[in-house]
Amino acid sequence: MAGVRPSAIRELLRLGADPSVISFGGGYPDASLFPVDELAAVYAHLLVREHADALQYTTSNGLPALRARVAERLTADGMPTTADDVLIIQGGQQGLDLAAKLVVDPGSVVVTENPTFLGALIAFAPTEPTYAPVRTDADGMDTDDLQRVLEAHTDVRMIYTVPDFQNPTGATLSLERRHRLLALADEHDLLVVEDTPYRAHRYEGTSLPTLRSLDTSGRVLHLGSFSKILAPGLRLGWAAGSPDLVERLGLLKLAADTQNSTLNMAATSRYLEAYDIDAHLARARPVYRRKRDLMLETMAATFPDEVLRTRPEGGLFVWLTFPEGFDAADFLGRVLLPEAAVAYVPGATFFPVTQETNHARMSFSGVPDDRLVDGITRMGRLLHREL
Amino acid sequence: MAGVRPSAIRELLRLGADPSVISFGGGYPDASLFPVDELAAVYAHLLVREHADALQYTTSNGLPALRARVAERLTADGMPTTADDVLIIQGGQQGLDLAAKLVVDPGSVVVTENPTFLGALIAFAPTEPTYAPVRTDADGMDTDDLQRVLEAHTDVRMIYTVPDFQNPTGATLSLERRHRLLALADEHDLLVVEDTPYRAHRYEGTSLPTLRSLDTSGRVLHLGSFSKILAPGLRLGWAAGSPDLVERLGLLKLAADTQNSTLNMAATSRYLEAYDIDAHLARARPVYRRKRDLMLETMAATFPDEVLRTRPEGGLFVWLTFPEGFDAADFLGRVLLPEAAVAYVPGATFFPVTQETNHARMSFSGVPDDRLVDGITRMGRLLHREL
Repeated sequence: MAGVRPSAIRELLRLGADPSVISFGGGYPDASLFPVDELAAVYAHLLVREHADALQYTTSNGLPALRARVAERLTADGMPTTADDVLIIQGGQQGLDLAAKLVVDPGSVVVTENPTFLGALIAFAPTEPTYAPVRTDADGMDTDDLQRVLEAHTDVRMIYTVPDFQNPTGATLSLERRHRLLALADEHDLLVVEDTPYRAHRYEGTSLPTLRSLDTSGRVLHLGSFSKILAPGLRLGWAAGSPDLVERLGLLKLAADTQNSTLNMAATSRYLEAYDIDAHLARARPVYRRKRDLMLETMAATFPDEVLRTRPEGGLFVWLTFPEGFDAADFLGRVLLPEAAVAYVPGATFFPVTQETNHARMSFSGVPDDRLVDGITRMGRLLHREL
Repeated sequence: MAGVRPSAIRELLRLGADPSVISFGGGYPDASLFPVDELAAVYAHLLVREHADALQYTTSNGLPALRARVAERLTADGMPTTADDVLIIQGGQQGLDLAAKLVVDPGSVVVTENPTFLGALIAFAPTEPTYAPVRTDADGMDTDDLQRVLEAHTDVRMIYTVPDFQNPTGATLSLERRHRLLALADEHDLLVVEDTPYRAHRYEGTSLPTLRSLDTSGRVLHLGSFSKILAPGLRLGWAAGSPDLVERLGLLKLAADTQNSTLNMAATSRYLEAYDIDAHLARARPVYRRKRDLMLETMAATFPDEVLRTRPEGGLFVWLTFPEGFDAADFLGRVLLPEAAVAYVPGATFFPVTQETNHARMSFSGVPDDRLVDGITRMGRLLHREL
């Protein structure tokens, strides 16, 4: 238990539930985009027509029909995949837990972006890794620094990356760096965990090939999630990789919780068969794009110039960098929440080793437009006063 | 990964899915008992009226309304419990995984019944425990032997027990032994994990108080599941214990998979509010009781006398003991499956240390009556020929 971090995510979920606070904290999708009528029809069908199967146990690796649907989607995304290469998991988070269980021993090294996804640090913590964070910029993980880091550490077990619209910075790993990262992983014979919850939410530019599609050594574990493309409340994701890797993860999945909800797997499978999720995503993207633009425009209009912000091409997050010496956690607790009822995630918690205090993660996805503008404007006013 | 056992449970799930085999293997509830109309109404309500909440993320310890409903039910079962004492988990299995993560280090000792639940051995395996199995009889874990075992081992971390209608033997821990087990746990200052998936399915006799209700030291972690009382496909269970224990397990739950399905938690909570689950259970019990009686009567009529069987007062399982030297796995693979298309779970896999080959676990819960009689009769004929 020594390594379990105090739970910032739990705090966020709690804040997100307080309706009086305008929270840019959680990475919640916009609930108004959930395909509710379609899901209602799917659940009604399953519970009226196929209830015995949908409510019973099923195979631990996941409902075969859903694994096949996921394999089709991954194949269409440049990763030739069969149902056997897919493990259905309890959201992407479970893939992080299982991957760490598989390869990390106490004290062994996990390489991450710096900063990195807080949920990954929480998932990895029980296995007690040492972290080797790698510098990032607007093109994601700096592979020159990655090379230095890999040469400086023995006993590295895993490179963990969110290549598309990273959490928390919003940065996307460039194509050149994707190739370089894989070459370095080959050279050092490392597992690469590619976490892609935001991949479908690109608002401009061209989609880059996944690491798994470029991998020739079967070393990439590709994680994805239905939380951001369908609904988080179903709690479904997938892990895809080499048969050997998926087999070993499947045994750990069985040990951890036997299986996912049969009903939710059947519903998601049927949704993918009966409806067009790509059309659904095509409807969602402009909404998120507008929210991103609204957030960036309102920041441009109301924030002091010395507050730097990223411009993500997709995903849910804008990353703020305040001047050196600014403490984003202190500002949140002392000023922003009590005076403006506005919240973000202080950035320090996303740094695995040396916590930088002058950052914040802002999510634009789950906040209605008027409250988004209102919240950013209030925050800008207080930042002007503070800086 | 060294400790992950070849997955007998996965094999069972696969066999259970082959409709031509009469399988007494899986611990499947009878699908014809699922309260389908009620669940259909509940999902329809949630997806039409409350979809934004039911499809969104929620707090990681579980939907507050469901935690409150579970607390009420545990309180009514003799365990005064508040919602804060309850953690919603991904079936009872996840409670085993989290408990082992919390207290087991490689080589440290876990005490179990001998034989014990296979799923627990699978859940504990990644933490690499040493097992100290305790003799069992018709009254469950032999507490005299437990005393000897505890005195013989240093570094014991946990006593794991299924006190009601144990898996695989069907035995129920007597009241006297419940008190004695807790006294020994107090003396040695040990965590007791009480796993109660079958507790509501008592077909005769009087319900005994849970270990948690008798515990005065806050050392019992009480696990339960909706799989056998509502439907496995929802994949929901609970862990209840002292606030400190639940808090620490909650952090591990957050790390493992963030949360359970919001939709399924909301549906189960609403089902418990809108319908009478006790009336549902009162309708299910005579069905299972009849299946148990049918299995035992058919065995009495068709099995050789030298095949011993337990007579469980509840639950889903009858445990067979064949004569010394009989190999139940060999008989299954060589005779029973190929000649009669009948399956059970060979008993060896339920023994943590010294595997006894002359046992089988037979589940009566998920097999329609006519197939149950047919399967047992075919098995009896082949046993007569073999013995």
